[in-house]
Amino acid sequence: MTIRIAVGGASGYAGGELLRLLLGHPEVEIGALTAGGNAGTPLGAHQPHLLPLADRVLAETTSEQLAGHDVVFLALPHGHSAEIAARLGPDTLVIDCGADHRLENEADWTRWYGGDHAGTWPYGLPELPGHRAKLVHTKRIAVPGCYPTGASLALAPALAAGMIEPAVVVVSVSGTSGAGKSLKPHLLGSEVMGSASAYGVGGAHRHTPEIAQNLGRVAGEPVTVSFTPVLAPMPRGILTTASAPLRNELDPDEVYRQAYADEPFVHILENSWPATAATLGSNAVQLRATVDRDAHRLVVVAALDNLTKGTAGAAVQSMNLALGLPETTGLTTVGVAP
Amino acid sequence: MTIRIAVGGASGYAGGELLRLLLGHPEVEIGALTAGGNAGTPLGAHQPHLLPLADRVLAETTSEQLAGHDVVFLALPHGHSAEIAARLGPDTLVIDCGADHRLENEADWTRWYGGDHAGTWPYGLPELPGHRAKLVHTKRIAVPGCYPTGASLALAPALAAGMIEPAVVVVSVSGTSGAGKSLKPHLLGSEVMGSASAYGVGGAHRHTPEIAQNLGRVAGEPVTVSFTPVLAPMPRGILTTASAPLRNELDPDEVYRQAYADEPFVHILENSWPATAATLGSNAVQLRATVDRDAHRLVVVAALDNLTKGTAGAAVQSMNLALGLPETTGLTTVGVAP
Amino acid sequence: MTIRIAVGGASGYAGGELLRLLLGHPEVEIGALTAGGNAGTPLGAHQPHLLPLADRVLAETTSEQLAGHDVVFLALPHGHSAEIAARLGPDTLVIDCGADHRLENEADWTRWYGGDHAGTWPYGLPELPGHRAKLVHTKRIAVPGCYPTGASLALAPALAAGMIEPAVVVVSVSGTSGAGKSLKPHLLGSEVMGSASAYGVGGAHRHTPEIAQNLGRVAGEPVTVSFTPVLAPMPRGILTTASAPLRNELDPDEVYRQAYADEPFVHILENSWPATAATLGSNAVQLRATVDRDAHRLVVVAALDNLTKGTAGAAVQSMNLALGLPETTGLTTVGVAP
Amino acid sequence: MTIRIAVGGASGYAGGELLRLLLGHPEVEIGALTAGGNAGTPLGAHQPHLLPLADRVLAETTSEQLAGHDVVFLALPHGHSAEIAARLGPDTLVIDCGADHRLENEADWTRWYGGDHAGTWPYGLPELPGHRAKLVHTKRIAVPGCYPTGASLALAPALAAGMIEPAVVVVSVSGTSGAGKSLKPHLLGSEVMGSASAYGVGGAHRHTPEIAQNLGRVAGEPVTVSFTPVLAPMPRGILTTASAPLRNELDPDEVYRQAYADEPFVHILENSWPATAATLGSNAVQLRATVDRDAHRLVVVAALDNLTKGTAGAAVQSMNLALGLPETTGLTTVGVAP
Repeated sequence: MTIRIAVGGASGYAGGELLRLLLGHPEVEIGALTAGGNAGTPLGAHQPHLLPLADRVLAETTSEQLAGHDVVFLALPHGHSAEIAARLGPDTLVIDCGADHRLENEADWTRWYGGDHAGTWPYGLPELPGHRAKLVHTKRIAVPGCYPTGASLALAPALAAGMIEPAVVVVSVSGTSGAGKSLKPHLLGSEVMGSASAYGVGGAHRHTPEIAQNLGRVAGEPVTVSFTPVLAPMPRGILTTASAPLRNELDPDEVYRQAYADEPFVHILENSWPATAATLGSNAVQLRATVDRDAHRLVVVAALDNLTKGTAGAAVQSMNLALGLPETTGLTTVGVAP
Repeated sequence: MTIRIAVGGASGYAGGELLRLLLGHPEVEIGALTAGGNAGTPLGAHQPHLLPLADRVLAETTSEQLAGHDVVFLALPHGHSAEIAARLGPDTLVIDCGADHRLENEADWTRWYGGDHAGTWPYGLPELPGHRAKLVHTKRIAVPGCYPTGASLALAPALAAGMIEPAVVVVSVSGTSGAGKSLKPHLLGSEVMGSASAYGVGGAHRHTPEIAQNLGRVAGEPVTVSFTPVLAPMPRGILTTASAPLRNELDPDEVYRQAYADEPFVHILENSWPATAATLGSNAVQLRATVDRDAHRLVVVAALDNLTKGTAGAAVQSMNLALGLPETTGLTTVGVAP
Repeated sequence: MTIRIAVGGASGYAGGELLRLLLGHPEVEIGALTAGGNAGTPLGAHQPHLLPLADRVLAETTSEQLAGHDVVFLALPHGHSAEIAARLGPDTLVIDCGADHRLENEADWTRWYGGDHAGTWPYGLPELPGHRAKLVHTKRIAVPGCYPTGASLALAPALAAGMIEPAVVVVSVSGTSGAGKSLKPHLLGSEVMGSASAYGVGGAHRHTPEIAQNLGRVAGEPVTVSFTPVLAPMPRGILTTASAPLRNELDPDEVYRQAYADEPFVHILENSWPATAATLGSNAVQLRATVDRDAHRLVVVAALDNLTKGTAGAAVQSMNLALGLPETTGLTTVGVAP
Repeated sequence: MTIRIAVGGASGYAGGELLRLLLGHPEVEIGALTAGGNAGTPLGAHQPHLLPLADRVLAETTSEQLAGHDVVFLALPHGHSAEIAARLGPDTLVIDCGADHRLENEADWTRWYGGDHAGTWPYGLPELPGHRAKLVHTKRIAVPGCYPTGASLALAPALAAGMIEPAVVVVSVSGTSGAGKSLKPHLLGSEVMGSASAYGVGGAHRHTPEIAQNLGRVAGEPVTVSFTPVLAPMPRGILTTASAPLRNELDPDEVYRQAYADEPFVHILENSWPATAATLGSNAVQLRATVDRDAHRLVVVAALDNLTKGTAGAAVQSMNLALGLPETTGLTTVGVAP
């Protein structure tokens, strides 16, 4: 079967990563590529690494341009996907890499993003209990945020096993591509290189309610989340460190190994701790949990590529599920290192 | 006055930073420079940035070579400073950049480092309550570890004010020079660049008891510390994120501003969050605290240069105090950025 | 068909990249993996990005371990491949990523490497005139050096067209993985990050005679090569800048476009200049040539990934040719960026 | 004596570096700080490393604001300094970090920058023959471009000694701060890190005529310059590799050692090759020359910090000369490394 896909927002980082993966996906054919301000220019001007598509001219991001494809990926600023999806109709698989359809609670949406809540779509993190089934044959998918992917996978098994108190502390060190291709002074190479910096401190980052939603559902009780993102001098990668007070004496190795036993993309390390470089360009999450006896806390570290498993890889993985393809089609657990 | 100083371990990163600062210190004259395996080679082969000393040949690190100076800085592997200090006699100011004399509790020493406990020396973090006075006119100084410097300065004011529970979570993102010039595969540039990785996870890092000791003394009760160090792709800098459950509703801005009102090297930010690049090569700590109302935690972020304020700058600052010089002599709060 | 392959030197950077590519090659099955000092340890300890092979234990690099495969890749220190190849027999395809069989001139070998010259094998740079045919159905392949790949592809069309004098200047900026996983102080992350440095200056780098050999053959006359390698703070990538005095007024765009018109891995840029990031993990070379009218020189810039097209990708491309597979099997022109 | 200085363009990288150096200069007092679009905001928002000036509010860049100081440093886009200087009057020392007054030839100015030629000021590279004397007691200084500083110091001694043909090839690898704080996509951290890229290829960079002017004057004949700048993933630093065909058999060590024997900021290396990290934040140039016998060329490598010796350090050094202060006041040859 050949699946015809379109990408809205093809000149950004998420769009570029979607195309990189889709160029290697054996079942898809790449159709319309659209953009906002970059419409009318060739893709090669923005994504010089995508040689086979270098001469494709970007169309304007409209539902007309995106119509007529089996699958439409949207990598747009938030607030734009609901309207486009409505116009594409119920038979098109729409995969939203933005935040619009992740939050279930309208009040959360209003508080953290503002404007009308566009509703909730099946959530593209099949490794979280309950989600994989909802992705099969769906026509709407909300791709998780990059930080929530790491934090949720790091803590879900422990919460599901009742191992920890529902009060977690997450500090995530991220590469700069997570901020997108925004022209802001603090994202300039001169500012970023040689520097680590925190932002959205004190619960101010918009991914916080998404983490809490994911973890609360797994825990079966509300989970408070202290989340601090840190920007590190690397283009890609998220290293999540997560911890919480212990509730019991379960062996974290066993709990995590069992939780992810059948997951093709989650790999539990035994003798080393995760490093983001090992996941570069791959859809893998490398993860390890341990108990700090002195602090009486569980500590978990997870590494992933924010653009792959954290965004575009999750989108393709979810597409595979929705279309009935093998879940791993077009994806790899092999990183590009060093 | 001209103070004659010697540096034991001059070919390493701490030794190099000591010399960089001492070359700019108006009151000192640089005497013997010693090394272990690099003895017999010129300093320029190891520290090409220290041009004025490039032709100095490194002597063997022995008490004989280090004798005859007013101040001896030791930047040696742990376990070596006590014996050298004993031979240098009580009139020489000995400043140990290693761990040997930081821990007060013998059992802590034995558990974390092993071997005999060499005793405790005045602790070179004058910004912590009670320490500055002990440094004045002392002849022995234990320079704090780089991680404990950030964690202690980040949390001490809140603990002293009774603002937080004595159960803290610290995640510190560090540049690679903190690991020294060790020839280990994971410290190669090819491995480090583009990667963030955790190590010493679950309370396994030796700086944990030092942090607990500092904070426990300030809090007046034992403090449990969950500490996770993260290696980031930058040569220098530590970004500490620290948090703990709130005990009361004090305003963190006021608490921190008051605590550090008279400190020349601690700067409380108002409108931005700390970034390590702004402290490069300076003795400043940039710091900001806030309250996360949802998670009911205090969150503090502190940035410093691990080689300057985290090691060699603290050593010089402490030397100034011990010798009765103005505390800031030869030190700056101005970083080299971008 | 399933081709059984072995890799000698699997714990190093070239070996790791070979395995990364071979894991995605549809026609191969990965057999023996061997190492020197790392024999007996699991591959995952050295190549954490190669998850599917993480538990494979490395055997000793001997001809016995490597025997019994259709293809044997050797990524060994120079001087070791001839003997192993002899023992593997004439029916095994042996692909040497080392320097042993690249140089045709025995005197060159003796001067630059020393010891006995092991003979010359077909040279795995099919884009150079005359080489592709020799690779078809061969059983011995010498993979080019990473610098010679960039320099030769950058200058060959101009020399073949008689466009430039046979006196070229090449400055190549390389990532650190080109130096391998050697534990040398100047390759530590702390030394590398934030620094550009030259080495092998003045014609002292061993790749110089290989560049001269390639270019001389294309030019039909001896070519003098001034080559300066520069180490830059990045794990991968070579940016070659090459220039030479003009001999005629040909249009470089036309000359280069025509020379590489049928090459699947060489891409001529039109509106931008090459950047190494766009080639990360890909087998592509991005290239552009121009004329400097004031200096009366041709200037060419080429970007490639030193581990892929510069080493392991060239090895796989050559294997494909030798085995009669489509030349691009298992290889991509799509880089992993940003 | 206390010299009152002002800085026009204080929120950019050159302005920040000027202030960093001037904060450590014992004879100056920092007066007005001005900016273009950032006027009205505190300096700390743009230069978080300049803690002592964090609360200074930036004034508008006008001659009124800059008037009334002994020295005015201008770090402005080109085309603005002549008018401001005229209004400041002949008694104010005006030091222009921009390009406006560097080129002697009006045709060069018109071709490379366009608009009216503002005239030529004494050139702030005292290490070039003939320049130091012109800087003493002058009231107008044109600070050299960063690339011309490296290229000129690398090649001047050889040209002066008649050692090389007047046809030089210069490839300079630069950190990103050389491009200023411009919000352009290719300067984003995500794009820069992990990548080396060429720009201004084929003689298109505006620093080319400045290099040719400097070298032609030293050589006493026109010098053709093939110049290629390369952007590397580091915030600071320029590594210049320069070469030219040999004219005679002089010993480069002797020629360079003699040429720079009395220069406080030029250091000739003997046993190693320059690396930019060793010059970070210092006013030093580290340099080494050798002869490539095979290619019959002289090859020179020079490292410097583009913001210090390449811009702001040269400005301060020139100011010292103009004011009759010791040339090295407020400057160091000690870099901040690693």
